[in-house]
Amino acid sequence: MFAEESISGKHMICDIKNIKNERLLNSINDVTVMFDIICNKYGFSVLNKIEHQFEPQGFTLLYLLSESHLSIHTFPEKNYVAIDLYTCKKYEDNSDYEEIYDLFIEMFKADRGIPMIIDRYF
Amino acid sequence: MFAEESISGKHMICDIKNIKNERLLNSINDVTVMFDIICNKYGFSVLNKIEHQFEPQGFTLLYLLSESHLSIHTFPEKNYVAIDLYTCKKYEDNSDYEEIYDLFIEMFKADRGIPMIIDRYF
Repeated sequence: MFAEESISGKHMICDIKNIKNERLLNSINDVTVMFDIICNKYGFSVLNKIEHQFEPQGFTLLYLLSESHLSIHTFPEKNYVAIDLYTCKKYEDNSDYEEIYDLFIEMFKADRGIPMIIDRYF
Repeated sequence: MFAEESISGKHMICDIKNIKNERLLNSINDVTVMFDIICNKYGFSVLNKIEHQFEPQGFTLLYLLSESHLSIHTFPEKNYVAIDLYTCKKYEDNSDYEEIYDLFIEMFKADRGIPMIIDRYF
């Protein structure tokens, strides 16, 4: 980091494993509801979204946010989801992201790992 | 990392700065051409894409890939772009990603930084 750099936003990388709520791995609708609730609660503006259902299973859902993006890729065959949340906002600390991570773990009934939270710089 | 984990894919985070090709910061079309060339060359299957032009400037472009996703957020006012490439493929090493990063730097005529390349695990 150089002295003249400033934080553009925070990016959280979540590799979520050992999921007990397996239904959610195959439900674009339910994950959409969860993402909409999160965006509403934390003040992320959803400008557009696209999804793709893979055969025989798994899906991708991408949210284009005014603040950047939110993505999920589900791998039911691996009992695994990859979620990325990248938002360009001013944050005092990681607490919003940690709360959102907790919500993911609660919804998926999954092992609590340690999400990677990265400050990104202009 | 646990012994039973295996790599799901690689994620490259690029914060590209000091861009001399400023035109590209405001050209969704040109970046789309660049992304299409990269996806074709490196065997990423584009399933869908969405874009948003911000006012007065800057845009977001999201590619939904069969292998995961590719995103760009441009900030002309900061002379900065944030690019993420996350693909679930088997890689021998980081050389494909390093080549792609070199292409970004060449296209944007920007400072060569060090991209963050993260192995993601099931």
